[in-house]
Amino acid sequence: MRPIDIIRKKRDGAELTREEINFLISGYTRDQIPDYQMSAWLMAVVLRGMNRVETAALTEAMLHSGEVLDLSALPGRKVDKHSTGGVGDKTSLILAPVVAAGGVLVPMISGRGLGHTGGTLDKLESIPGFNVNLSLADFRRVLGACGCALIGQTAEIAPADKKVYALRDVTSTVDSPPLICASIMSKKLAEGIDGLVLDVKTGSGAFMKKEEDAVALAGLMVETGSRMGKKMVALITDMNQPLGRNVGNALEVVECIEVLRGSGPDDLRGLSIELSGWMFFLAQRCASVAEGKQLAQELISSGRGLEKFREIIRLQGGDPGVIDDLSRLPQSRHKLDLLSPRAGYVAEIACEQVGIAGILLGGGREKKEDSVDPAVGMVLHKKVGDSVAAGEPLLTVHYNSDARLPGACALLEQAFQVTVDAQKAPPPLVRRWIEGNPYSGPAAPIVRAADA
Amino acid sequence: MRPIDIIRKKRDGAELTREEINFLISGYTRDQIPDYQMSAWLMAVVLRGMNRVETAALTEAMLHSGEVLDLSALPGRKVDKHSTGGVGDKTSLILAPVVAAGGVLVPMISGRGLGHTGGTLDKLESIPGFNVNLSLADFRRVLGACGCALIGQTAEIAPADKKVYALRDVTSTVDSPPLICASIMSKKLAEGIDGLVLDVKTGSGAFMKKEEDAVALAGLMVETGSRMGKKMVALITDMNQPLGRNVGNALEVVECIEVLRGSGPDDLRGLSIELSGWMFFLAQRCASVAEGKQLAQELISSGRGLEKFREIIRLQGGDPGVIDDLSRLPQSRHKLDLLSPRAGYVAEIACEQVGIAGILLGGGREKKEDSVDPAVGMVLHKKVGDSVAAGEPLLTVHYNSDARLPGACALLEQAFQVTVDAQKAPPPLVRRWIEGNPYSGPAAPIVRAADA
Repeated sequence: MRPIDIIRKKRDGAELTREEINFLISGYTRDQIPDYQMSAWLMAVVLRGMNRVETAALTEAMLHSGEVLDLSALPGRKVDKHSTGGVGDKTSLILAPVVAAGGVLVPMISGRGLGHTGGTLDKLESIPGFNVNLSLADFRRVLGACGCALIGQTAEIAPADKKVYALRDVTSTVDSPPLICASIMSKKLAEGIDGLVLDVKTGSGAFMKKEEDAVALAGLMVETGSRMGKKMVALITDMNQPLGRNVGNALEVVECIEVLRGSGPDDLRGLSIELSGWMFFLAQRCASVAEGKQLAQELISSGRGLEKFREIIRLQGGDPGVIDDLSRLPQSRHKLDLLSPRAGYVAEIACEQVGIAGILLGGGREKKEDSVDPAVGMVLHKKVGDSVAAGEPLLTVHYNSDARLPGACALLEQAFQVTVDAQKAPPPLVRRWIEGNPYSGPAAPIVRAADA
Repeated sequence: MRPIDIIRKKRDGAELTREEINFLISGYTRDQIPDYQMSAWLMAVVLRGMNRVETAALTEAMLHSGEVLDLSALPGRKVDKHSTGGVGDKTSLILAPVVAAGGVLVPMISGRGLGHTGGTLDKLESIPGFNVNLSLADFRRVLGACGCALIGQTAEIAPADKKVYALRDVTSTVDSPPLICASIMSKKLAEGIDGLVLDVKTGSGAFMKKEEDAVALAGLMVETGSRMGKKMVALITDMNQPLGRNVGNALEVVECIEVLRGSGPDDLRGLSIELSGWMFFLAQRCASVAEGKQLAQELISSGRGLEKFREIIRLQGGDPGVIDDLSRLPQSRHKLDLLSPRAGYVAEIACEQVGIAGILLGGGREKKEDSVDPAVGMVLHKKVGDSVAAGEPLLTVHYNSDARLPGACALLEQAFQVTVDAQKAPPPLVRRWIEGNPYSGPAAPIVRAADA
């Protein structure tokens, strides 16, 4: 087999065999195939596509490029959740402790902020001392001890994906459903899970602005996971405005603790309970999603979710005192209210702009090597559909550097659209869901509208 | 400007600006842009294409990556011919001396065999002592002394093309009309010529099997040259059977000397005169192509073309004695006749197979670093339309290695299709021609059928 023939075959739009895909991925991982051949092939994939069989083969090849965790020694089902990324999207920090508190194991390997979106690892690291860089042995130990562990991708997990992703990033070959699917699913399947809930974001603050693109990617990921015997569901959820009210690493941890204390914003609490309900259902802990949601609600009300979060923080080296004293989290030196120029209703929040404003404040990375300021961000006082008086604060900017403020404020001032028109209802959070069918052969994912 | 944005733009099917193309080509030539970004961009070009303005900009960027010869100190017009490659395609060795003998300068930078096709440089090197690796100073000196010089691409000529071509070769990004056009035209325009005759081959022995593909490439090249103020014509010519009767480096030199002596096969003589006629016309040496062909015929009949060839050989270090004594050219140790299994007519010769058989005998390269055996090849006794008796020789194989014979013979035996059906006329050699219009702005090439 020669790489050049495989490149030509995909260039000409033909279907690659499992053997050809394995040859390419394993050769590239072992530095036997040069970057310049891989990048030509990746561009051919972006422009010619891959069918579902090829996508599953690519995912498996990347999965088996490294270690696949065998968690069978730990009793009980293991489930995880993955989000395609959004602004203020912090549900992992709520549902991971809630689901673990319900007796289901949550082995979660997460990522950092990407583009205008935040990342679970950056948020966790705003908790003083929290270590996301556990070895796989420590990951397993923490998971066994408290039912949940939250870490970053290690060198052992899907090394092919690490190498391929770095190349895609510099060759404009990121935007491709089969490549995105293989990248996400190879890492998640390496966790040794039985089921996976996907939160596929769509809207102005998501990578997939169009719902049809989100549905297509979700279907691809659900089918790929189902082909490998995993219980799968994908929820297509709204990202036309930030989730919850806080955007920024420490500010988002604050909001998660508030939800775990039984308060916090409705949308964040609602989506966290929805996703937890599905996790309980896929883990067969509950007979239905409704029962699962009920259980999640009880675990929050009883405070058991919050206690589980305290335990996770302690086991991963963080300061568990933040649970009771939010002021132990990093605080910005300065705050500034942005006021509404007129009375009316919030008609729209340009969600990606809010995410970019957070990066401009120092809360995310413009380049890979940038460090992140955990304290900065925004607290939104008004969201879509809310009424607002002239001069009333729309949001409060938390910042540390005067130099970084003007750029962020300019974006934020444009991001809020306040109109005197009739009040607009906030968009429904869950648009539809797509279930896998792991027990009856290659899955035809079942798509259901959320209001069905 | 960032390479990644230019890659994305082409990936998404947009038109690149001249500045973006220049940035990419000059950065790549100076090793500032890595191979992996260039190959992703090349694949995007293969699949998304380039329009004529982009193709001209790419050609110019590659042209100006190196030295562009200024031959204005040498009096008279300079023209050249380029063929897209075929089997037994040896017209350069005839028309270069003929046109130079007619007083028009021919500064010819040629290539080596590629795939199943032969190359001018390999043929010339079968003449003992002939040096194709002249410096540009020596190239200019020989050209000034005798009106013609034949060399290979030097390091100074279009270095971007050298680097890009090597990358295309290993990334399955060769088959792309704009990339082929830019590669050919950047080298040819660096010769400092006033006009160029393109011989674009089509048929089973050409790279472009379909005539419509050949016409499209020809139109692109004619327009690109015209945009740069060159007099251009492309002839679409048949390559459904080898040109002439001899295939193989020294054997083809023999046949060229035969044509220059006034004999040789009709098709080779006819096409060489046709191309020479166009060269005289583009150089304004003759008022019409017909006059140019008449002049070429006279230069052959008078022996002045042959004498010019002798002079070129002498000036480039070769043995001019081969002109009078063909046995001074390399001879194979063995010969074998392949006989017709039946009486009938030659209906078809699988032309690419004949070219590959020549490579199997050692006459071409399977890998870049292979050396070439100048003596081996085939002499065809029968061509399409010829009648043949059962047991009569179809061709004679000239070979040196017993080990190499069976593979070549197996291909050659399958290549000749002898039928008892009605006699088939040989295909017309010139299918159509495409003229540039350099004097009235960006050219709309004029396509004419050969029988119009």
